[in-house]
Amino acid sequence: MKGKADSMSAREFDQLFQTVSNWGRWGADDARGTLNYITPNRVRSAAALVRSGRSISLAIAINTVAGPDNPSPAIHHMVQAHDVPLPWGEPRFCLDYLGCACHGDCHTHLDALCHISYRGHLYNGVSAESVTSQGPTLQDITAYAHGIVGRGVLLDIPRLRGVAWLDPGEQVTIEELEAAERAEGLRLGPGDILLFRTGHHRRRLEQGPWDNGYDGEGKAGLHPSTMLLLHERQVAAFLPDGDGEAVPSRVEGVAYPIHTLQIAAMGMACADSLQLEDLAGACEQEKRWECMVVAAPLRLPRGTGTLFNPIAIL
Amino acid sequence: MKGKADSMSAREFDQLFQTVSNWGRWGADDARGTLNYITPNRVRSAAALVRSGRSISLAIAINTVAGPDNPSPAIHHMVQAHDVPLPWGEPRFCLDYLGCACHGDCHTHLDALCHISYRGHLYNGVSAESVTSQGPTLQDITAYAHGIVGRGVLLDIPRLRGVAWLDPGEQVTIEELEAAERAEGLRLGPGDILLFRTGHHRRRLEQGPWDNGYDGEGKAGLHPSTMLLLHERQVAAFLPDGDGEAVPSRVEGVAYPIHTLQIAAMGMACADSLQLEDLAGACEQEKRWECMVVAAPLRLPRGTGTLFNPIAIL
Amino acid sequence: MKGKADSMSAREFDQLFQTVSNWGRWGADDARGTLNYITPNRVRSAAALVRSGRSISLAIAINTVAGPDNPSPAIHHMVQAHDVPLPWGEPRFCLDYLGCACHGDCHTHLDALCHISYRGHLYNGVSAESVTSQGPTLQDITAYAHGIVGRGVLLDIPRLRGVAWLDPGEQVTIEELEAAERAEGLRLGPGDILLFRTGHHRRRLEQGPWDNGYDGEGKAGLHPSTMLLLHERQVAAFLPDGDGEAVPSRVEGVAYPIHTLQIAAMGMACADSLQLEDLAGACEQEKRWECMVVAAPLRLPRGTGTLFNPIAIL
Amino acid sequence: MKGKADSMSAREFDQLFQTVSNWGRWGADDARGTLNYITPNRVRSAAALVRSGRSISLAIAINTVAGPDNPSPAIHHMVQAHDVPLPWGEPRFCLDYLGCACHGDCHTHLDALCHISYRGHLYNGVSAESVTSQGPTLQDITAYAHGIVGRGVLLDIPRLRGVAWLDPGEQVTIEELEAAERAEGLRLGPGDILLFRTGHHRRRLEQGPWDNGYDGEGKAGLHPSTMLLLHERQVAAFLPDGDGEAVPSRVEGVAYPIHTLQIAAMGMACADSLQLEDLAGACEQEKRWECMVVAAPLRLPRGTGTLFNPIAIL
Repeated sequence: MKGKADSMSAREFDQLFQTVSNWGRWGADDARGTLNYITPNRVRSAAALVRSGRSISLAIAINTVAGPDNPSPAIHHMVQAHDVPLPWGEPRFCLDYLGCACHGDCHTHLDALCHISYRGHLYNGVSAESVTSQGPTLQDITAYAHGIVGRGVLLDIPRLRGVAWLDPGEQVTIEELEAAERAEGLRLGPGDILLFRTGHHRRRLEQGPWDNGYDGEGKAGLHPSTMLLLHERQVAAFLPDGDGEAVPSRVEGVAYPIHTLQIAAMGMACADSLQLEDLAGACEQEKRWECMVVAAPLRLPRGTGTLFNPIAIL
Repeated sequence: MKGKADSMSAREFDQLFQTVSNWGRWGADDARGTLNYITPNRVRSAAALVRSGRSISLAIAINTVAGPDNPSPAIHHMVQAHDVPLPWGEPRFCLDYLGCACHGDCHTHLDALCHISYRGHLYNGVSAESVTSQGPTLQDITAYAHGIVGRGVLLDIPRLRGVAWLDPGEQVTIEELEAAERAEGLRLGPGDILLFRTGHHRRRLEQGPWDNGYDGEGKAGLHPSTMLLLHERQVAAFLPDGDGEAVPSRVEGVAYPIHTLQIAAMGMACADSLQLEDLAGACEQEKRWECMVVAAPLRLPRGTGTLFNPIAIL
Repeated sequence: MKGKADSMSAREFDQLFQTVSNWGRWGADDARGTLNYITPNRVRSAAALVRSGRSISLAIAINTVAGPDNPSPAIHHMVQAHDVPLPWGEPRFCLDYLGCACHGDCHTHLDALCHISYRGHLYNGVSAESVTSQGPTLQDITAYAHGIVGRGVLLDIPRLRGVAWLDPGEQVTIEELEAAERAEGLRLGPGDILLFRTGHHRRRLEQGPWDNGYDGEGKAGLHPSTMLLLHERQVAAFLPDGDGEAVPSRVEGVAYPIHTLQIAAMGMACADSLQLEDLAGACEQEKRWECMVVAAPLRLPRGTGTLFNPIAIL
Repeated sequence: MKGKADSMSAREFDQLFQTVSNWGRWGADDARGTLNYITPNRVRSAAALVRSGRSISLAIAINTVAGPDNPSPAIHHMVQAHDVPLPWGEPRFCLDYLGCACHGDCHTHLDALCHISYRGHLYNGVSAESVTSQGPTLQDITAYAHGIVGRGVLLDIPRLRGVAWLDPGEQVTIEELEAAERAEGLRLGPGDILLFRTGHHRRRLEQGPWDNGYDGEGKAGLHPSTMLLLHERQVAAFLPDGDGEAVPSRVEGVAYPIHTLQIAAMGMACADSLQLEDLAGACEQEKRWECMVVAAPLRLPRGTGTLFNPIAIL
């Protein structure tokens, strides 16, 4: 899969961009993009999926230790422990402080639509200059304030392939996504939240972190053409371990083609760096790969993303 | 309600503490407290409450402006806008940074059980010294990592009283909670998540912020004896606008009796500073005051609390 | 002094800007501006001023409490106290963390030349677009890395006027600066560091903080025409209590004329919010208003300013 | 020097601690320690050393990139660039934010006396419990608020040895310090500021950063017995590249013997991680290894240390 055969020219990429684009689809002022696919009916259907009644976090623990995939670690400090007598007597409080880059590579986070620009434009054709040094004026993370609630579908590629994880650089194709659907006995449909598992986090747990950035050791992810499937099926949100990108990119001049297509072209709600191991284990036990998902960013005005803790309910 | 009649001696308070205490109830090592009341069955029942399919944030927008109830405002800075050419060409990313005290008065947050100590002990009799200057070693916020998922019951006290909000210092009694149940045609039960509305946030929106701290202008909240009801009914979690406390306290020597009883005695999952206005409006429209609630803290090891964005689904 | 008589039209201001401009004076690539006036000889002369051998801080204590002139307070948290056993046994360390906006109104700080733009340009005609969302590419604070070392001259205006402090809005003229020189028996000259005292900090200590920003209660400072004197005398640096500005501005369309002239036109090293009370007291005792000054910013690449602690040596 | 011969038992170390201790020397409430050696006369003499009139920063640039000796990098973000129109029109401001651990290994910083405890005590016998989770109540960094001003003496060990730098683990003895004095034609005396160069920073520049912590690859520094010399000579302050410690320690049970002796026993003003390369070059040119030093921490109440930028004036 790493040969020339899977590479894509800039021209082909721009054609793909046009094909999957949702610019204007929900009006010139739309800031919710593919979340428009989630209708009240689909929220009801998602709730109806709850059977075993267990809830599972899809987040990685916040990481305060620098490493090859965590160059800007979170800071977490106590503000006060119970050793400090307080003016009022009892009770005593302990307090803490958290600081974090909102898009850290190994921190589970949700991107705002303004996060990505392609050739000077955000989703829906908004100018990239709408984001100033003081933040976005349009398409910030508060567009998702009321949460992403819907049917989650776990496509578990390592399970399909019979491996522990995909190796850096490997790409997943449309055919493989469809094979995973068949193997799991379900089909991605309108308003669904795609939980895309490559085993990235499991590899990290077992082999330690690595530099998976642009000029690092690479990362497993999707072939850009898979966006045709997500577009056709009207997927509403994308929650991957890793970030969906196969690194290095095989697209001429475009380092992050998946983000570009999903966010800038399709207006899709996309997260990074989920922990899908617990959910994958539970799905295997229950032999069903669908669940209710409730995922809400912090309500951060002018935010370009936030850490979050998405919850799957089986 | 503000006279001497409603005051409580230190001795009476300590008796109440004993009465509602859950120390030892779920074992010496328990760190989930009243969340133990939420069984898989109750999660299923909560999901079955979803009817209209709309989801509503219960959080206030993160506030970066100092004010009388926000002495330590959040910091939110851009890390990069789209004005910076990146080494790989396209796409471009914008990035930001968020820093916040985890228990800010006007920031919607969830407390860990370690947050409160009373006379040297946390919930379950754990020593307050287990929290060092580097954070808690027990009962941190990760005990709630998989989220608080259950039936939310909104007890809307201003609605009951026919007022826009309760004024600072006012107390809500058991009788009033029961009257609210009757008015709304429901009954708090085992494993429920109590959404307690005093109109605190609406008052803030309409009259501006005020100092509601220990020696400030006060706050409306619960009479300590209401904990008897919450204990008897086996309430699992408490999500109030304000923080549940009537300030100033009428308990001799105990400035924050509600936190003390809920967290240190009962081991209850408690949040602060919710925004219940949107939900109250929706409940009024639908004439039902119960919903599914999904609320997850950030997954912060050694955290004593985190900002969060709880979601109600009607 | 508050009447129409002291107002200035936009045109007059632009003429003044041209008159005091140092653009091109030290070459097209210059980033040190008026610090070029400080020759080795002048450093030697400054050192020769040391007589009584006492050193005095000119900084205000860092302020972590929000207030009307401190809307973005510093954060200061312990990272570790001595309660934490360390892997190696002895000794133990305590550690802390400091975060601060680099230009806080009541934090003693030094501005980089890139801090101010006027009609799209920084000092020396550099485009304001050279500062991106990732910081300045030219004229950052590291231009001052080796410190500002020279002769400090305290012009103590409250002493001249026989008052405790100047009131908000009051302006100081050329005539008054010259009168202060005469009263103190000295004369500002080439390469000098002007320590300009209005009593701002003393007023704050005695009457509490006030909002002295653009649309607040005002601030005492310099009349824009005084820049003619500073230019003629070849002053190298400006260290005021307050920030030198008389607020509100009387210049049409220019809210901060002093910063604009000093930094954007003259390329002058300027600080904000000094504490000159201790020095003023010492000068009064010794009946001399000159001293050696050593002031160094933190060495922050791409910094637009930093907190600092300038030292006067008498 | 790495053999058993240079190791020291816990008992020998405690004897050395007693020998060099200054507990009680300047009174029970003293918080300035060896800075008491710097008299006004000595400040005057230091100023008289200024000859060539050049000033040199002794700080390393603040480092925002994680690495083996920078696990908690500084954060530095823009708050506003000139792209944001301001309510008042002109001028525009750019602003930034800096956050930093105050004792980062590769950040030039000054330790407060409270920074180190040995067997439960700080300098002068103060209990280590005086430092709570909210910071020190005694011996914070504001004890140095008015700066450390005095005669700096650079002892340049690589120059003495004829090498580019000392290798990790190497120790410098009393004999070598005295040899350096002879080679440079001077003698450390009362109130002096010792600038101790091992070439640590030059090695870092040329070979890249390495983990020099407790269980890392080591660091060159002083043999504990050298404290006898510093004590006898009444050295006031210690400003090393590296931090003076030879890592790994050869003292039984004491990982950082130099910090322990200097700070906890002697009450010495100590810094870490200076950049002495520029100064060493200038001293070589001028063939004199003494200068005036002015070094002031940020004025941080309850600080256990701060970043700073010490200035040498030749």
